[in-house]
Amino acid sequence: MRWLSALLICVTVTLSAEPLLVEKQRFTLDKFTTENGQLIAPVNIGWEAYGKLNSDKSNAILITHFFSGSSHAAGKYQPDDATPGYWDAIIGPGKAIDTNKFYVISSDTLVNANVFDKNVITTGPATNNPASGKPYGLSFPVVTIGDFVEVQKALLDSLGITKLHAVIGPSMGSFQAIEWAVRYPDKVERLIPVIGSAYIDNYSAIKLQRWAYPILQDPAWHNGDYYAKGQPWQGLTTALAYITQDALHPDGFNPRYPPISSDTAIHQRIEALPLAWQQLLAQARLRAEKQDANHILYLVRASQLWRAGMGDNWQQALNRITAKTLFLPASGDLLLPPALSKHSAGAMSAAGRQVQYAEIPGSFGHLDGVLGISAVAQQIEALLN
Amino acid sequence: MRWLSALLICVTVTLSAEPLLVEKQRFTLDKFTTENGQLIAPVNIGWEAYGKLNSDKSNAILITHFFSGSSHAAGKYQPDDATPGYWDAIIGPGKAIDTNKFYVISSDTLVNANVFDKNVITTGPATNNPASGKPYGLSFPVVTIGDFVEVQKALLDSLGITKLHAVIGPSMGSFQAIEWAVRYPDKVERLIPVIGSAYIDNYSAIKLQRWAYPILQDPAWHNGDYYAKGQPWQGLTTALAYITQDALHPDGFNPRYPPISSDTAIHQRIEALPLAWQQLLAQARLRAEKQDANHILYLVRASQLWRAGMGDNWQQALNRITAKTLFLPASGDLLLPPALSKHSAGAMSAAGRQVQYAEIPGSFGHLDGVLGISAVAQQIEALLN
Repeated sequence: MRWLSALLICVTVTLSAEPLLVEKQRFTLDKFTTENGQLIAPVNIGWEAYGKLNSDKSNAILITHFFSGSSHAAGKYQPDDATPGYWDAIIGPGKAIDTNKFYVISSDTLVNANVFDKNVITTGPATNNPASGKPYGLSFPVVTIGDFVEVQKALLDSLGITKLHAVIGPSMGSFQAIEWAVRYPDKVERLIPVIGSAYIDNYSAIKLQRWAYPILQDPAWHNGDYYAKGQPWQGLTTALAYITQDALHPDGFNPRYPPISSDTAIHQRIEALPLAWQQLLAQARLRAEKQDANHILYLVRASQLWRAGMGDNWQQALNRITAKTLFLPASGDLLLPPALSKHSAGAMSAAGRQVQYAEIPGSFGHLDGVLGISAVAQQIEALLN
Repeated sequence: MRWLSALLICVTVTLSAEPLLVEKQRFTLDKFTTENGQLIAPVNIGWEAYGKLNSDKSNAILITHFFSGSSHAAGKYQPDDATPGYWDAIIGPGKAIDTNKFYVISSDTLVNANVFDKNVITTGPATNNPASGKPYGLSFPVVTIGDFVEVQKALLDSLGITKLHAVIGPSMGSFQAIEWAVRYPDKVERLIPVIGSAYIDNYSAIKLQRWAYPILQDPAWHNGDYYAKGQPWQGLTTALAYITQDALHPDGFNPRYPPISSDTAIHQRIEALPLAWQQLLAQARLRAEKQDANHILYLVRASQLWRAGMGDNWQQALNRITAKTLFLPASGDLLLPPALSKHSAGAMSAAGRQVQYAEIPGSFGHLDGVLGISAVAQQIEALLN
């Protein structure tokens, strides 16, 4: 048996030393009609996949991304990339979402936040409208979680994938995952909404509006028509700073910034800004380089409009789901708190659906659904197998 | 016994029919030096009192007000006032803070938010600087919770009150109450911080900065020098809307506004603003009439700088407290959550201090410390007697 142990160790070393290498691919849809009846032509989105599609195309798992995320859910584009995709801890050979078994696919949404990231392909207000040769700006139609799902479905149709072993996504990705299971119950066998919810309440919709506010008020926003002049950096940066704070629990947030007690300038001058605030903004400014202010506004709107089934009654829409479901909120989440997941899971249980519920522990709040996902790897693996 | 019953009913009716009538009084301090070494001359603040000061002046209870509040803690100025002071449910004859026994006194802070309310007297950036004959604007010094306490102490000194049976206050009022007990342990016999904390963490300080942001970004703010031109209404209104939301739990917030699902305009036009947001702003605009944008900035700063003892180590400062203490956070508070009260109470317990802790139930979050205070009337009464 000694040689077997040695082989296993060898395999393990190889697994951790060689990152999963992935390649961004482009999907083009010549034309797409949005839920509110507008035409976008063409739509381009990026996608990537890990593992191999089996011969009967029955082993596909779709991963749907969060507000600030992209299709880069796992692996690296180049071996020396600084970090892998956001859920690399659970996606890969031998991991909870095992790419030795499953074909894991993920796509960029419409109006993706990171439109200026070279590894993101999306269509939105910052991309060129072929009819005018200029960026769409606010002429781009309002799009919804339902629209994100329809574009993904067109991609999967193009690959001949008609069944999904599972749809899994964190935060805004959970909205898409739920909408998949509501719209296409016969195609979705398992559903895992992580740090998510089947609806957005008024309270959350207005918190989202507060992300939009600094952009809308920035004079450089120019009613969305700023592409020839440069972005509304102040508004965009402030919005991204708010998103960072709202995605964190105080326990995860506080140690990252200098304490107010050592901040003497703000005690002397009312005009002085807290150092912690300045640092938060400086970090956001770096991230802003890859993002677009209008895309943030469109993502805010898509999130505000979210309710399962996109109709009047999200509870009734959930009744259509036949997928085996596992809700995974994060215990310390202040952005989409566990109460929303519980309420969503409760509505499904009440309708006799199979629903499981577990909480992700940690001190990062909402972000535990990304950074701390390993804590629920076993529950995810169990639902998939 | 029938006549006794009749008499009791009669007394009860009389109690509820005749409101406690109160009168606003003015206290002037010729000059005051702030914690950061600046001179304000003179300082004027308003105050009011309920009950009678006994002959040895040993029955005084000080009530310290919250961020958006004033000295109007109980009673009415006129019998036909629409509403009484904010804690009328617990202050009055026969109530938890019994004005048949206690002389209850409350004063407006420096930089009070409601500087344009005819029943508020305060000194701050919107009041005239006698040296220039014009409002101070940003030349008004940064003031702290410690400064608020020192002005209150001067008021009590002027009345010959050298001992306080108790200091009690909600939210920013809890900061003042704690600072009283830290600075003057020999004067404060009992301490009840309601929906409060002995310090502000980075997370809360930055949330407060987000209240300031819309004012600072409003072009009509003119670096605080807007008194001849009119207020930065948009910034002020937005700040007040944020304060309203942050003081409420979603369970208390959601039913007040029209649901997003019935809001069709936002699905059609990206420029449309959610109806719920519009209503929240409209309500805030009405409140803005009595408030001043710079005063909000100064209150934000005073709150950001808050830590017991105003030094490097708030835990050590709490060791100076000798008052019997009762922390009363609200269970659903998302602004100053129970964790902060627990942490504060824990630091006092660790130092061998007498600390009690109870939570205020309710669906209004932070506001349960004002609207739902009756729920802990018994605990308050027990500590006082």
